[in-house]
Amino acid sequence: MPSVSYTQFSFFNVCFPSEFVAHIEINRPEKLNAFNQYMWTQLRDIFHLISADPNVRVALLSGRGDKAFTSGLELSAELLAILNGGDRDDERARFMVRRVIQDFQFSISAIENCSKPVIGVAHGVAFGLAIDILSATDIRICTSDVRFSIKEVDIGLAADIGTLQRLPRVVNSLSWCKDVVYTARVFGAQEAHAQGFVSKVVESKQKGLEAALELAKVIATKSPVAVQGSKHLINYSRDRTIQEGLDYTATWNAFAIGKDMKDAVAATLYKRKPQYGKL
Amino acid sequence: MPSVSYTQFSFFNVCFPSEFVAHIEINRPEKLNAFNQYMWTQLRDIFHLISADPNVRVALLSGRGDKAFTSGLELSAELLAILNGGDRDDERARFMVRRVIQDFQFSISAIENCSKPVIGVAHGVAFGLAIDILSATDIRICTSDVRFSIKEVDIGLAADIGTLQRLPRVVNSLSWCKDVVYTARVFGAQEAHAQGFVSKVVESKQKGLEAALELAKVIATKSPVAVQGSKHLINYSRDRTIQEGLDYTATWNAFAIGKDMKDAVAATLYKRKPQYGKL
Amino acid sequence: MPSVSYTQFSFFNVCFPSEFVAHIEINRPEKLNAFNQYMWTQLRDIFHLISADPNVRVALLSGRGDKAFTSGLELSAELLAILNGGDRDDERARFMVRRVIQDFQFSISAIENCSKPVIGVAHGVAFGLAIDILSATDIRICTSDVRFSIKEVDIGLAADIGTLQRLPRVVNSLSWCKDVVYTARVFGAQEAHAQGFVSKVVESKQKGLEAALELAKVIATKSPVAVQGSKHLINYSRDRTIQEGLDYTATWNAFAIGKDMKDAVAATLYKRKPQYGKL
Amino acid sequence: MPSVSYTQFSFFNVCFPSEFVAHIEINRPEKLNAFNQYMWTQLRDIFHLISADPNVRVALLSGRGDKAFTSGLELSAELLAILNGGDRDDERARFMVRRVIQDFQFSISAIENCSKPVIGVAHGVAFGLAIDILSATDIRICTSDVRFSIKEVDIGLAADIGTLQRLPRVVNSLSWCKDVVYTARVFGAQEAHAQGFVSKVVESKQKGLEAALELAKVIATKSPVAVQGSKHLINYSRDRTIQEGLDYTATWNAFAIGKDMKDAVAATLYKRKPQYGKL
Amino acid sequence: MPSVSYTQFSFFNVCFPSEFVAHIEINRPEKLNAFNQYMWTQLRDIFHLISADPNVRVALLSGRGDKAFTSGLELSAELLAILNGGDRDDERARFMVRRVIQDFQFSISAIENCSKPVIGVAHGVAFGLAIDILSATDIRICTSDVRFSIKEVDIGLAADIGTLQRLPRVVNSLSWCKDVVYTARVFGAQEAHAQGFVSKVVESKQKGLEAALELAKVIATKSPVAVQGSKHLINYSRDRTIQEGLDYTATWNAFAIGKDMKDAVAATLYKRKPQYGKL
Amino acid sequence: MPSVSYTQFSFFNVCFPSEFVAHIEINRPEKLNAFNQYMWTQLRDIFHLISADPNVRVALLSGRGDKAFTSGLELSAELLAILNGGDRDDERARFMVRRVIQDFQFSISAIENCSKPVIGVAHGVAFGLAIDILSATDIRICTSDVRFSIKEVDIGLAADIGTLQRLPRVVNSLSWCKDVVYTARVFGAQEAHAQGFVSKVVESKQKGLEAALELAKVIATKSPVAVQGSKHLINYSRDRTIQEGLDYTATWNAFAIGKDMKDAVAATLYKRKPQYGKL
Repeated sequence: MPSVSYTQFSFFNVCFPSEFVAHIEINRPEKLNAFNQYMWTQLRDIFHLISADPNVRVALLSGRGDKAFTSGLELSAELLAILNGGDRDDERARFMVRRVIQDFQFSISAIENCSKPVIGVAHGVAFGLAIDILSATDIRICTSDVRFSIKEVDIGLAADIGTLQRLPRVVNSLSWCKDVVYTARVFGAQEAHAQGFVSKVVESKQKGLEAALELAKVIATKSPVAVQGSKHLINYSRDRTIQEGLDYTATWNAFAIGKDMKDAVAATLYKRKPQYGKL
Repeated sequence: MPSVSYTQFSFFNVCFPSEFVAHIEINRPEKLNAFNQYMWTQLRDIFHLISADPNVRVALLSGRGDKAFTSGLELSAELLAILNGGDRDDERARFMVRRVIQDFQFSISAIENCSKPVIGVAHGVAFGLAIDILSATDIRICTSDVRFSIKEVDIGLAADIGTLQRLPRVVNSLSWCKDVVYTARVFGAQEAHAQGFVSKVVESKQKGLEAALELAKVIATKSPVAVQGSKHLINYSRDRTIQEGLDYTATWNAFAIGKDMKDAVAATLYKRKPQYGKL
Repeated sequence: MPSVSYTQFSFFNVCFPSEFVAHIEINRPEKLNAFNQYMWTQLRDIFHLISADPNVRVALLSGRGDKAFTSGLELSAELLAILNGGDRDDERARFMVRRVIQDFQFSISAIENCSKPVIGVAHGVAFGLAIDILSATDIRICTSDVRFSIKEVDIGLAADIGTLQRLPRVVNSLSWCKDVVYTARVFGAQEAHAQGFVSKVVESKQKGLEAALELAKVIATKSPVAVQGSKHLINYSRDRTIQEGLDYTATWNAFAIGKDMKDAVAATLYKRKPQYGKL
Repeated sequence: MPSVSYTQFSFFNVCFPSEFVAHIEINRPEKLNAFNQYMWTQLRDIFHLISADPNVRVALLSGRGDKAFTSGLELSAELLAILNGGDRDDERARFMVRRVIQDFQFSISAIENCSKPVIGVAHGVAFGLAIDILSATDIRICTSDVRFSIKEVDIGLAADIGTLQRLPRVVNSLSWCKDVVYTARVFGAQEAHAQGFVSKVVESKQKGLEAALELAKVIATKSPVAVQGSKHLINYSRDRTIQEGLDYTATWNAFAIGKDMKDAVAATLYKRKPQYGKL
Repeated sequence: MPSVSYTQFSFFNVCFPSEFVAHIEINRPEKLNAFNQYMWTQLRDIFHLISADPNVRVALLSGRGDKAFTSGLELSAELLAILNGGDRDDERARFMVRRVIQDFQFSISAIENCSKPVIGVAHGVAFGLAIDILSATDIRICTSDVRFSIKEVDIGLAADIGTLQRLPRVVNSLSWCKDVVYTARVFGAQEAHAQGFVSKVVESKQKGLEAALELAKVIATKSPVAVQGSKHLINYSRDRTIQEGLDYTATWNAFAIGKDMKDAVAATLYKRKPQYGKL
Repeated sequence: MPSVSYTQFSFFNVCFPSEFVAHIEINRPEKLNAFNQYMWTQLRDIFHLISADPNVRVALLSGRGDKAFTSGLELSAELLAILNGGDRDDERARFMVRRVIQDFQFSISAIENCSKPVIGVAHGVAFGLAIDILSATDIRICTSDVRFSIKEVDIGLAADIGTLQRLPRVVNSLSWCKDVVYTARVFGAQEAHAQGFVSKVVESKQKGLEAALELAKVIATKSPVAVQGSKHLINYSRDRTIQEGLDYTATWNAFAIGKDMKDAVAATLYKRKPQYGKL
């Protein structure tokens, strides 16, 4: 069903559990789905493919295995070598560090910039970049056994690939947010739900995937022009004044309103299920 | 009591249940208070009048009848003709669509830009532009039977007159917000309250109006210089850096501090009720 | 233990209950810790000292005595004289008012701009500038008997030293926020907690200080490079687009990643407690 | 030829010297075209009409008579009464002053926000609001005898209706700009040209109108979709980051590219003069 | 000398006329260097390579042949098919148009985002995207026979890949800028120089390349940390407030100051020529 | 005449050549007015005093001696020790570097933030921070023998205390600006004038001081409310959208319009010289 091949990714499975729904699975369960250097690139490439694939309208993201969504970044010898700067002088090493961080940020931002909504399902260990990744998804569900932690402070650095930017915008209380950032303490499903980080808590990973799939199927029946426009416009407007958001939205809908609206209105009038073109 | 005439509005009632308090009622109950083309203009004109009327310090907004706050935009033949562009070529039709959206946005923004606080009371059906309107009020109350829905996705377009800009700023969880935007599903009073969309849930529309009026009476006893300044400064600062908000506020209070402060301090000292001039 | 002298402040006590932890106490209990003109300057100077003091990694802020965190600004004859403008003409008096507001803002912003996290513990009366001060701290705890009020509207002016800028960013619901701003009504611990203004409610001031100290001790064991970076980057990113926050963060960590990360990784590998240099 | 009536304006002449070209003339020569209270409203209304009139593609703006483009604001008794606040208390009077300034700003901004390019032709006396008006036009021509002055400092106030915002963006040197603002000194055509304030200097008002008309005729032959888009996009992008300007522009052209481009390409291929639809 | 291969580009020559200096030549002289669909991609790839190549410190950009820098975009059948939307419905076609514009913008921005300075040398015909490209370079030189034109209005669209964003920031007079945008008229070297679009006019293309190479050689002797930092910081600060630019710059130099400064100071003291590491 | 004492500054002379005019002279001629560590602090303190001193309405800034305005920063052993970080680990040394840069920026910004206009007179050597300082003044005059250079690239760093932010906003051509930044080449009075960096070139330092004093005297006769408002509003609006500048300006003039306007109007009517109160 997908219009491009998603089989070349050694550390991710991509399957299509329902029409217009892609399911991306982080696939390195023997290492608690920890991210090595190849996975950054694969994550980015997958979401770029999904973003442009007209056969996908919504994506799920979860971790393979019982134990973890992901335990975070794997501190490999290669990565440490880069951070140490090799034989570069100190400033040149730091130019390189900056570039590596920007590359990693670009991979995480591929989720947010993906034109289709992404639903994250978290379970088990969800540490460090798990929060960066989940904060970049649109809707989050977790299991009751999940263990979240913003781990970066415990490895001696300020989180630098998205958590500090996105988490404060998706949760309730900045007081709570700073608490979990400064202490790197583990927090669970109830706390995550009370703070609005997740919008649903389920008993098991299986239930989580079912709930996410059910939600995804609903979204997949909707006009992709409307859904993708909504994602883009919410994200655009979140960072700007109300007036700038409104101006941009009027300009956006000047090109995006049309056939889908007519189809939707006709479907309503004739009480049939609307069929929308691919996008 | 009001200093201007509010009787010329065919689809809205405006009355004055208490000193300095205006009550605006959407008045098309036979159509579930759905908005036709005249109502946009009337809504805008009323809030421009209220904004400048020194006899009003706070406004209530509700829908007439038992069934609905408003069921949203009425898809009239005229509106569809505009959206179809008439005999214009496609780009010129789209220029026209953009202008129509901007006009509608301007009507909704009249509530936010009204210098006086506006309290919304929602009951029954509150679909589509109901959310646009309510998000632009300052304080929201709803009945336990209310049924909210961000309907736009179901008519094939991204919401374009304020919901996508304002809702994420007035509720807790962006995860929840995107859920209800992408699915257009109905949600009720408890969910709206848990998310902070409304700050109070009451049993009936009558109780809602009473609660709103009580709140409005309290606000009406306060210094209008202080209250109107607070509304303006919260809205201004919401969209800018902390420092820009502080700078603007210092400049604002350089002209706004004066007689009301002296009256308030004197009233406190002499334990009398302060009387403030009209604004 | 502190590297500078904190004894010169007549209206504040500064002590060091644990390594790297400073405790600042507002010390004018006979006046409910109301702020006179000297206290503004002292508050600012203390937080500038703390910000630069390598022996401090986290600060607590509370009010002395049983009755109040602070009852707010003391309306002294001197202050009223300034607000009245002395013998200046009206515009020159207003230039002066603007300057006074900016000075007061600068004192409050010293808490937010302090490079170290600040934990506020509120009890008893916490009115007016109590909210300005607490909104500028990073993490807030309160006692069950606390009585909060955004009092400014009741003295005839819009709050102008930080509440209107910071409160909407640290709580859940803008609807609730405007309610308490416009009415100046008192609200308690449960409401503050439900809205995310405080992240913990405790029985007594003593328990509050213990909870805050426990939290502070945890933070004090962490890399100060990581913690101070996190505070700065969250505050910076809060006010800008996601992309601007990410760009700035990459540049920041290009200089801030290094020895602490190596120490933290080594400590993890050898299961020892990391020791970080002063900052 | 115009599709609406422009005859109701007592202080402005509007004529149509060529197809798609409107000429607006400030018409109060006996008072050096000084602006009274009616003229603000008329100026605004005319440019709103022009903006929406499909029979206009470009507008000229000049002053009637030999002596002046305009000598600026007429300090009438009515205006001074408003500035004095009538019987309002001081703060309420200042709220009113703020509103009056915003109304005046709105009139000037109508020129900038007019969807069609506006060419200003200045001659003789061009003082005070002459600069506000001209800075809001797109292209400026002046006669060699023109006498410009940013007069506001000489009447005891900082210019508040556009000069301080727009002039620094349309001239070369901020050093020069501050010189003429702080001193209110008169400057002539050569200085204005060297600084880029005007793009052409001509011998006489007659020559200026001819040059402007010639330029207007050229613009009137171009695609109105292209020209109006260019004006909007330059003004939008001027105030934002390069990237924001590019993003907005891509969204704009997603609806604006189409028939005019095909017509233009076809006209080029077949070496004929393109004919564009009205806009 | 270059550390990567630049030979795979069919429409561009890349050579290295001096140490650390790359020269990129648009190479389609038989078509006046008009851009076909492959050239966009190649332009982008080359500047990405240059940006990361430690053997390049500065780049020259010119057009091959006597006649043209570039005559602009070639309106191919393929491009027109995309603009016509193929068999997509109208809105889906417009989504595609938006994506194509963004791809083209990304290619042009690769010049601005290239970490090394780029010097443009324009001669002969320099129409349409020539201006987009040149506006994205850092320093511009032209020959006395150059013929510039912002051609887009003449093909029925507003320029959408950079001219409207960048040109107003690099020239003197917005009045002049709008003149040449709205009319699409040809302007020459003297006008370009008077407006600051180019900083030097030379007699012939040969002289232009010599002048550019001489300038490039000077820049290539300077610290690449200093030069690349300067480019990045000027571009960053251009779009933001002074204070934001200063804050970012302090953070940047916190990692970028070091060995090059020591080498430079030592070279000055010992009157030798400094040697800087590659970057 | 001055209301505070300016005699405590060892490296600056402050005198009062005319009523309301202060003249600040950099006073270290034996070292070409190079800045040592004390001078940063003194520069900042002087402009803070001037800003608040009601007896000063405009300030001149020049360098003592025949040879130099200033040759820039003196690279002292102390400064190099700071840049080397002392015995701190590398990241802590870099935190310190950042703080030093911010301190230096704060000193330069004191000129821009001074509420009174500052006129710079440059002669002889004007290297490095000379450009940072001059870019922060309002109006610049230079002698025909001046030698400007943006020297930072030649000491291995990107300029970090203001030139890269402010220079592009005060000159004509970004192409020229990048040329002189990247090459650190010397440029003279004619080039500075052609680019708008200075608004006047004079024969000698003596003539420059006379011209500056003459200009200062004119400004000193104007309403300080008008002049100081103009400086603040131009600087504020320069960095923001037109609309934000207009909104802020209306709020500013709501408190700043009043007695000076009445005095100015009365003076005009009665043809007398207006006398304004101190500010």
